[in-house]
Formats: sequence, C-alpha cells, structure tokens
Amino acid sequence: MADLLGVAVLGAGHMGADHIRRLDRVVSGARVAAVADPDAARAREAVAGIGTATVHTDAQAALEAPGVEAVLIASPGPAHEEALLAAFARGLPVLCEKPLTPDPAGALRVLEAEARRGRRLAQIGFMRRYDAEYRGLKALLDDGRLGRPLMLHCMHRNVSSPPDFTSAMLIDSSVSHEIDAARWLLGQELTAVTVLRPRVSSGAPQGLQDPQFVVFETEGGALVDVEIFVNCGFGYQVRCEAVCEAGSARIGDDHGMLVTARGAAWADVPQDYLVRFADAYDREVQAWVDATRRGEVTGPTVWDGYAASVVADAGVRALESGTRTAVELAPRPDLYARTGR
Amino acid sequence: MADLLGVAVLGAGHMGADHIRRLDRVVSGARVAAVADPDAARAREAVAGIGTATVHTDAQAALEAPGVEAVLIASPGPAHEEALLAAFARGLPVLCEKPLTPDPAGALRVLEAEARRGRRLAQIGFMRRYDAEYRGLKALLDDGRLGRPLMLHCMHRNVSSPPDFTSAMLIDSSVSHEIDAARWLLGQELTAVTVLRPRVSSGAPQGLQDPQFVVFETEGGALVDVEIFVNCGFGYQVRCEAVCEAGSARIGDDHGMLVTARGAAWADVPQDYLVRFADAYDREVQAWVDATRRGEVTGPTVWDGYAASVVADAGVRALESGTRTAVELAPRPDLYARTGR
Amino acid sequence: MADLLGVAVLGAGHMGADHIRRLDRVVSGARVAAVADPDAARAREAVAGIGTATVHTDAQAALEAPGVEAVLIASPGPAHEEALLAAFARGLPVLCEKPLTPDPAGALRVLEAEARRGRRLAQIGFMRRYDAEYRGLKALLDDGRLGRPLMLHCMHRNVSSPPDFTSAMLIDSSVSHEIDAARWLLGQELTAVTVLRPRVSSGAPQGLQDPQFVVFETEGGALVDVEIFVNCGFGYQVRCEAVCEAGSARIGDDHGMLVTARGAAWADVPQDYLVRFADAYDREVQAWVDATRRGEVTGPTVWDGYAASVVADAGVRALESGTRTAVELAPRPDLYARTGR
Amino acid sequence: MADLLGVAVLGAGHMGADHIRRLDRVVSGARVAAVADPDAARAREAVAGIGTATVHTDAQAALEAPGVEAVLIASPGPAHEEALLAAFARGLPVLCEKPLTPDPAGALRVLEAEARRGRRLAQIGFMRRYDAEYRGLKALLDDGRLGRPLMLHCMHRNVSSPPDFTSAMLIDSSVSHEIDAARWLLGQELTAVTVLRPRVSSGAPQGLQDPQFVVFETEGGALVDVEIFVNCGFGYQVRCEAVCEAGSARIGDDHGMLVTARGAAWADVPQDYLVRFADAYDREVQAWVDATRRGEVTGPTVWDGYAASVVADAGVRALESGTRTAVELAPRPDLYARTGR
Repeated sequence: MADLLGVAVLGAGHMGADHIRRLDRVVSGARVAAVADPDAARAREAVAGIGTATVHTDAQAALEAPGVEAVLIASPGPAHEEALLAAFARGLPVLCEKPLTPDPAGALRVLEAEARRGRRLAQIGFMRRYDAEYRGLKALLDDGRLGRPLMLHCMHRNVSSPPDFTSAMLIDSSVSHEIDAARWLLGQELTAVTVLRPRVSSGAPQGLQDPQFVVFETEGGALVDVEIFVNCGFGYQVRCEAVCEAGSARIGDDHGMLVTARGAAWADVPQDYLVRFADAYDREVQAWVDATRRGEVTGPTVWDGYAASVVADAGVRALESGTRTAVELAPRPDLYARTGR
Repeated sequence: MADLLGVAVLGAGHMGADHIRRLDRVVSGARVAAVADPDAARAREAVAGIGTATVHTDAQAALEAPGVEAVLIASPGPAHEEALLAAFARGLPVLCEKPLTPDPAGALRVLEAEARRGRRLAQIGFMRRYDAEYRGLKALLDDGRLGRPLMLHCMHRNVSSPPDFTSAMLIDSSVSHEIDAARWLLGQELTAVTVLRPRVSSGAPQGLQDPQFVVFETEGGALVDVEIFVNCGFGYQVRCEAVCEAGSARIGDDHGMLVTARGAAWADVPQDYLVRFADAYDREVQAWVDATRRGEVTGPTVWDGYAASVVADAGVRALESGTRTAVELAPRPDLYARTGR
Repeated sequence: MADLLGVAVLGAGHMGADHIRRLDRVVSGARVAAVADPDAARAREAVAGIGTATVHTDAQAALEAPGVEAVLIASPGPAHEEALLAAFARGLPVLCEKPLTPDPAGALRVLEAEARRGRRLAQIGFMRRYDAEYRGLKALLDDGRLGRPLMLHCMHRNVSSPPDFTSAMLIDSSVSHEIDAARWLLGQELTAVTVLRPRVSSGAPQGLQDPQFVVFETEGGALVDVEIFVNCGFGYQVRCEAVCEAGSARIGDDHGMLVTARGAAWADVPQDYLVRFADAYDREVQAWVDATRRGEVTGPTVWDGYAASVVADAGVRALESGTRTAVELAPRPDLYARTGR
Repeated sequence: MADLLGVAVLGAGHMGADHIRRLDRVVSGARVAAVADPDAARAREAVAGIGTATVHTDAQAALEAPGVEAVLIASPGPAHEEALLAAFARGLPVLCEKPLTPDPAGALRVLEAEARRGRRLAQIGFMRRYDAEYRGLKALLDDGRLGRPLMLHCMHRNVSSPPDFTSAMLIDSSVSHEIDAARWLLGQELTAVTVLRPRVSSGAPQGLQDPQFVVFETEGGALVDVEIFVNCGFGYQVRCEAVCEAGSARIGDDHGMLVTARGAAWADVPQDYLVRFADAYDREVQAWVDATRRGEVTGPTVWDGYAASVVADAGVRALESGTRTAVELAPRPDLYARTGR
C-alpha cells in the first residue's frame, strides 16, 4: 500500500494523541510515519501499537524521517511558526491546529512565507467548517434564499475552563472559533470589536472575567455577538443563529434522545467539544488526507489563520480597554484572493 | 345586568366546583343562579361569596329555582340521564360533562328524547374540541393540504389513577376523550375496536391492566391507535399524530420553557389535565354561554355523546374478550345529520 | 348584579376596542360603563350591543358618567398624563396601557401625583408579566436554583412596522416591553444602554434603522441584549434566554403543532402580538378587575412605567449618539419600595 | 502496510458500491482485495482507482483471490446462503448485509453451519445498532433507570418505494430493521405478530398495501407497534419511543438546523436512509474491521439474523391471514447464549 500518506505528527499531547489515533484507526488513506514530542515517553505512548511510526523529540527530525510526506501540527501554539516554516521549506503539506500562531506578527510571517512560495501548503484546523450543521447553515446563507445576513447571535459555553485559563484566552482561544466561523459563514472580514463584561459568575475561578459578551462588526455591516462562558457548569453548547433579511436559521439546539420522567422532558447536553465535534474532526482530517493525496490544498487558508489572529488580538485589546477597537489587516496576497460569493 | 345568563350547576364536586368558579370569575355573560348537590355543605362551600346562587340538595329543585335559564351538569355519570330529561322537559339548554350517560342504552334514550323535541338543547363536554392545538390539527386536516388521513397515533398518560379505577375505566373514562377526538378530527364514525394488553406496569395498582393499547378502525378505513397509561408516574401527556397521504402533523409536544442545567436540557411536563386543558375548559364554557345567550346550541351533540358511549362499551368488551369487536350504532336521526366535509 | 365593576374606557382605537370586547365578553366581574373617543362614531361602533355604556368625546365626561368606578386608558400616549391625573383626582383605579407617558418628564409628574396621594391607584399595561412563559421564567429565576442571572438574550421581531414608525420608536415603543421585562425578571434597575446598528434590512422602509441591537447594563452587573427587528417579514417572535451561574432557561420557542410534509418538519409562527399574547392580555385585565373589586392595586406600578420611560429615553439618545448612555432615575418614593427578593 | 485487512466484497450494486467506497476511503485498517459481481462492468466501475482489487464474476473466485482475509456480502439476498457457507468453509470472517437469507429455512441452515464450527464468523448488517441515538436508547434501557419497558412505538417512513416492491416486502425488507432493533433494545425475543391494514394511501402504487400497522408481542409481555409507510412522500423518518414503567424516551426527532421564514419555523427532513444512517454504516464497518483485525467477531449474530427472518416470515403470514400469528423459533444453540441482562 505504497500510497498511504505518510504523516508526521508534531505534538503528542491531548490533541496530538487524538489525531494520531484518528490517522491510525479512523480515517482511510493515511498512516502515522513519525511523531515528535519533547516528552519522548508521551510520544512513544501515543504510537504504541503503530509499528510504522518513528519517534522523535525534535520536530525537524520528524520532518526528515523516512516516509514523511505531510505534517500535522498539534504542538503548542508557540511552536507552530517554526514548524510551519520548516514544512514549507521542504514543500510538505501541513494541517496546522489552531491557532496558526499565538500572535499576529508570527502569523504574518507565516503568511508571507507561504505567499512567497506562490502556492498553498497549509490548511488551518478550524474544524467547525466540517461540522454538518455549520455546513448546512453556510449552504443556506450562500444560496441567498434568506437574503443578506444582518446579525449572527453566537453562544459558546464550556462546563469549566482548564487551569491557568486567562480572561484574554476566552477570546483568543475560545472565541477564535466564532471568529473563523463568522468570517466563513458571512464571507466577510471583521472590522471592529467591542467586549462587554457581564457580572462575573461565582462559578468562575478567582480573577477570571467569565462570561464575556463580544460584539464584532463586519465589512458588510453585519453584527456578530458572542456569549462566551467557559465555566457555565451545565454543558458544552455551541449555538449560532443567523438573522437575515428574509428569515433566520439556528443551529446547535440538537438534543437527540428526549426522555420524559419525573415530571420533565429532557435531553442530555454534551459535556465536551470532542463529543460535539467528533465527526467534524474526523471529516476535517479525512478531507485533508484526501486532498493531499490528490496533490491539492483545500480548507481554511493561512490567510484565515492570520485574520483570526489579528481579530483575536484586537478582541483582547478591546477587553482590556473597554472600548470599541478597530481591526487592521495587512493587504491580502493574491494567493488568497476571494473566490465565490 | 338582567342579561347575565342564569345557570344551574348540578354537582358541586371537583369538576362542578371548578365550573362554578369559572362561571363566576372567568367567563363573561353568565352567573351562577342555583347549585344542587346531595351534600348541601359541599354545595354551600362551592358558592361561598356568590350571593345570587340558591343551594339545593335536589337537582329538580335547582332547575325550578328563580332565574335559572340554563343547566350545567357536573354530577356523577349515573345522574346524567334523569337531569338531561328534566332539562329537556323544561326546554333548558344544557352543557353536560362527559360521559353523556354511563351506558349506551341510557345515551340512546337521551338521544331519542332530544330528537323527539326536534331541536338541539344539549352540548356535551368534550373539551378537547376547544383546545388550541386540537383546533389547529382539525383545521389542517379539514383544509385537505395533507391529503386523506390514514392513521392517528394517540397517547394519553396520567401520573396516577384515582382509587377504585378499573381496567374498564381506562377505556370508558380515559380513552373516551380519544374516541371523541378521533371521530371529530376525522369526521368519521369508528366501526371496530381491538384492545391489546402490554405487560402491566409495576407502578399500577394490583389487578389493573395498565397500560393498554387500543386500536380503532373507522368507516373510512383509517386506523386510530391509543396508548392509554394511567399510572405512568411521570406526567400528564396527551399527544396525537395524524398521518395523512401527503404529510403528518403532531400536537402535544408543547413544552414551554427550556431549562439547561446539570448536563441536560429539559422542560417541565404538566402533572394534571386541569393544567393542560385549562384554556380549553374556559373556552368551552364561554362558547356555551355565548351561544346560549344567542339562542343557539353549538358544540358536540348528543349524537357525539351517544357514539362515544357505544364505542367505549365495545372497547370494554374487546378488552375482556381479547378480540376485535364491531361497533353497532343506532340509525342517525336527522337532527344530527352530518354537515360540512 | 350591582357588583359588576363599571369601567370607563378611554380610547376606542385598535387597542381600546379590543379591551372593550374583553371587558364585555371575556373577563368576568366587569362591565363597560362609559367610552370616550374624540371620534364619536368609532366609540359608538366599539360599544355596539353594549346597552349599558355611555359614549363621550371627552375623557373627563366619561370619568364623570354614572356608574364609573374604574378607568382603562387606551388612548394615544400623549393623552395619558391628563387622563391619569384626572382619574387620580377622583380616586379612580386605573389600568393604563403602555407607555405611561411619551416622555420621562410627564411620567415623573404622574409618579409624583400618585406618590402625593400616598397610595397606589394605577397599574401599567406591561402584559408580558401575565404571560405564562414569562411567569414561569420569573418563578425560576426567583427560586434561585439557577444561581444569579448574568445575561438576558432577548429577541423581538415583528413582521412589519406600521406606517410612520421611526428609528426611535424601535426603542421607545417596541423595546420598552423588554425594558420592563428585564427589570421585572431580574428585579434590578437598568443603569446604562448602548445601541448598535447592524446593516439595515432591505425589507425596512427607507430611512428606518431596522434592525437594532440594544445592550443594557443593570445595577447588579448583568447584561441584557435585545435584537429588535420590526420588519423581519417572517413572523412575530419574542424570545428570552436567561443565562445564570448554574444554568440557562429559554422561553419563546413554543411552536405548537409540528407538521411534516414535502421534505421538512415545520410549525407555524404567529404573525401578530395579539395572537401570541392574547392570553396575557386576558389575564392582565382579569387580574386588574379582580384586584379592583377587592379594593387593591397590584401589578406593574407607576414607578415601573416611569423607569421604562427613562430607560427608553436614554436608549433613543444612545441610538442617536452611538455611545453608551447612562440612565438617571429620580429617587424612588417610599410608595414604590422594593418588596421581595 | 501488510496489516490492512484484505476484504472481498460480493456484490457491486448500490449497497456494495457504497461499501467499497467506505472500505477504500472512509474506514481505516482495511483494503478492498477483491470484488465479485455477475455484471463485470459494474464491478470494475465500483473499484475504479483501487489498484489492489481484483475483479470477478464469481463469488467463489473472489473468496479465493490473493490477499482475501474477510468477506463483505452485499449481493442480493438469494445469494447470501451460498456465500456464507463458502466463507464459513474457508474460515473467513463475514459481514453480511441484511437479510441473512430471504427465508427462515435458509437462515436456519446458515445458523447450523456456523454453530457446527463452534465459533462465530459472521456479523449481520443491522446497522441501527451502531447509530448514536439507538445506542443511547439502548444504554438508557439497560441501565434500568426508567424501569422495565412496556411498549415500543416505532415509525418507519420512506419517501417512495422502489419498483416492484410488494406488500410482503414492507415487512420482510423494511420492518425487518424494527424487528432487530426491538429484539436488541428489549433483549427479548418476539413471540407473535398481528398486521393491521389502514386505508391505502393514494400515493402508493396500485396493489400495494401501504401503509401497514404491525404489532409484535415479546416474551416479556411488551408490545411493539410499527407504522410502516414506504410511500409517505415527505421524508425518510425513523422514530422510536420506548415507554417504560417510570418514564419514556424517544429518538428520531433530531432535526438539526431550524429555519424561520415566511411565517413558519422548519427543519429539513432527510430524504434517504443513506443520509440518516451514514454514520451508523461507517461505524458498523469500522467496528467489523477493527474486531476482525483483533481476531474477534462482535455485533449482531447469525441467531439475530435467523430470528429476524423467522419473525418477518410470521409477519408476512399475519398480513395475509389478517390474524395474530405466533412466532416459532428453533432451539437456541449454545454458541448464541444470551449474555448480559
């Protein structure tokens, strides 16, 4: 089976290990050829039982390992830029988990590096674009039946936040999903952001501004509001309602089995994004493997990763300043010219 | 206000007291002129604070009381026939709670008495016909958009049954609502009935066949299946799905406020039919008062009460015999000729 | 029936005529004693068939008509102040349709007049407080199970706006319902307001800023966001989700009958607030009649009407200025001291 | 990648081609080693681009092809018995699409052949057992929180039936899914069946009894009713409500995106079982590949296939006779002893 795509996975933590499992046991057409993690024991554990994978503590070594034809970057954000540039230097296709880089400056350097090569190599890991409900909403907005979109109302709730989660991370780690989803759904760049501070929940760790209410403006005049609440305690919920000139559409109410007992009718709410978006992750990686084997690069671009980084950065500044903050994007290279709509 | 309709209420139990409250404090255009109950104390308690109402232990005396222009019968079923005939004899309009009478023979006698008079005096208390959801379903079926109805799937669940409830009463007291609703929704008579016995719930009192699964056939070839479960423990639920040639429509899923907490999304389920059908009872009595003041009789007819009695009786025999049992109706007097559809 | 409450109805337009019908034919315990409207023909038409009602072109004359014991004000907003003061002067209980007055200054004069008398006479017509779903949400928030409220997400959509509707009226006529609902649900005053301007719908009349997105802050630190969209074209929708520390609760999704046909499952959406809130209006007027007959005044106070007026006025200024605008309330008279929570 | 499981696929029609695509491009750990179809052109088309697959017109030849380690049977039902016996003779693990065989006698011969070998080789393609909602319902019933199950209400609707679909096929082709699902969900054998005939839809082809209403009894006394309607015109719908002693649970209402426009709120209904159960098929084949590579056989057994065949056969006879028909199963070999509950 010489045509199984040999993938080097960088990072063997929570996300990396899940992608290794996925490449090995869920998606077709790929194999794990190499894994790199500074913690060699963790890397070895992640590939236990995968005879074909070599283990490395150095990302560069993994890229040079035999049989590596593509790279999946699941290392911490600060390691992304170097890994992306190394992959570009070797002409290797990349699937890079979000964020592209932790800061807009690094994202811009990656963007310029890819643009200089003149063709796309990287797909960014905005997996919501592969979720069935989001795709349905995108298709509905694109076909024009509901008229032009005027507002997106978004909710993003987690049961609890990881240790050391900061108020800024509600925006640049959590809301970054809504930033990409809004840009993609609307086909518009975000131009300004305001962050409002509701009363802090007594369920939030000391010092964390949780929840927050974030309002984005778009180049087309639409408003995107986002409730982000990462210690809501009751479930993982991602909802989005698009309000258009001739109708509205809402996703994320999907509750599955309805149980009636003891005086109430209820449905379970997922507790974890890996449950809610499991299929989206599977489809995302399968789509990347399929495109790579065809010699193509599809999906979210480095420009998308760069734009998300700039908007998130403006959001963090808006949180701190309490004022409306404009979003300033670099000129868009031809490589990322808009298509369609 | 000489034009307030003076009503004699027969029976001051649970249902009678509720109708007295309704006539006095909810609907407009009526007043309680007299109340009769063998238990005089109960009757006096039910009209406490209503200065205009006289109290009687004898139904006949209440009908003869000053100012009585109409009768609402809420006494136990065995007292209905005599009360109806007495009201007919005086030409008084009647709203008679279901059942019309406990047995088909009595119902037939009432039917013949009204038919002999040549005009309608009685409205039967099938209040579901005044429920907003049922009315919506009826309107949808009547307008023909979904094509001809093929099946009705009905569920009727109570939290628990009253003491002394018998297996037969699941049919002639509870399913009697579905019997009328099916006849009304479909505009067809029921022609046969089969009663199936699922495993008995451990929550049912000793000796009660609960739940039951009842299947009716109609003159138009439709099937009507009814789950009746009077000790379900979890809530009062009435649902109905009509399956037609070109679509289906379901009522009774209406849950109101959706709460999300502790890993689930839920909505409260009503525990009692007086909650679920409160508005229907109000509208039923208001409609009766309004029509009576106009000199008209509308709503479910004595024929509807008679037919329900015959079908329920056949259902009880089907329960006991375990076989399909045909429904035999007397000829339909001209007074109750079909109209519409 | 000397104890039927004699009501003078001021105004016989759309709302006034509906209240006349309600007093005459829906609620119990009241009668229409007098009607006033500058258009005498309209007044006469509204009371056609109600023999007991006298007709006037002057509000003052109606208050002095024989048998008038209470007043229902349904005239245009600019006429409210004079009518309220006249009713107060006669000691007549009043149910005053919203708005209390068109401007905060007038509302303050009414407030001071009632406070000087030292007891409540007026109930303000915020009918959502009588809607079953709103009452359920209020009860849930009050019982504390979900913890303290952090955010209210509100939507208020109309199919189309009346002629001559202005951008300011989206706030002081439409959002005024959410202003009262938020104050009541949270038991908190609103302290600031910001109005954001999404892209204008092509379905809105020329010059109207529709939709708008309004964000209120409360004294307890909660945020209340309101989408107001009065030419949405697709239905009348009022939704409210309360997000609390330990859970969320949403009302307004109630769709009734679910129909499946032609590849979709759907439910009708009401087109009109009189349909959606019909029961709330009935319960509101019945509650007012009942309380008045008991010699009590309950329901929304003049303070509630005044506060709504001040907040709406701040909202209109926020719309015009594009900035966050603080809400400044006069001191709260003892007559309107907070109770409960 | 010597460890990719080499699969021979028998049948390259609609279902076979879909499984070939699935083995090649969706699930991991398998490859298509051989394909057999009497129509060689169709077989070649189905494996276009899969260099490793040999093409055969004879099933036996495909089993003997190099690299074949397992068999997926997707040929027409009449070919199943011979293919299963041939696979058993070679000791090859099999995933056999439903039905096991078209008739109980053939199913019994397959059962005896596998039982004689003393170990399981075959998994039957009842894919609903791999659907997330069905699995959730199964888990809920198994954990006992709702008490013992008393009734299952099932609906199974197709937009339209294929040409040449017969009244018997509504039961042995369509309801066979509910037969297996009921046996699996309840952990009970079905002991009798009655088939009722509602009015025939004008949308059904001439001569077809569509819809039908099928009622099964179980060894534990539960009732299972199934509406089967294969020309409903409006969508593909599979619903199941389990009614237990202490609560009920319903699956299949899952509508995804809710759109509001033009006076209604609606959600699309899938038109095809391949859409509704796409994930179930993926999970089923992945589970089979994974288990086979571990040297295990899991999932629905030949006994399950045999029992479904016997029950379906009784159902067809019940349809024809119009009476309750008992289900007679052969003794259960030790190989298929019940486990769990």
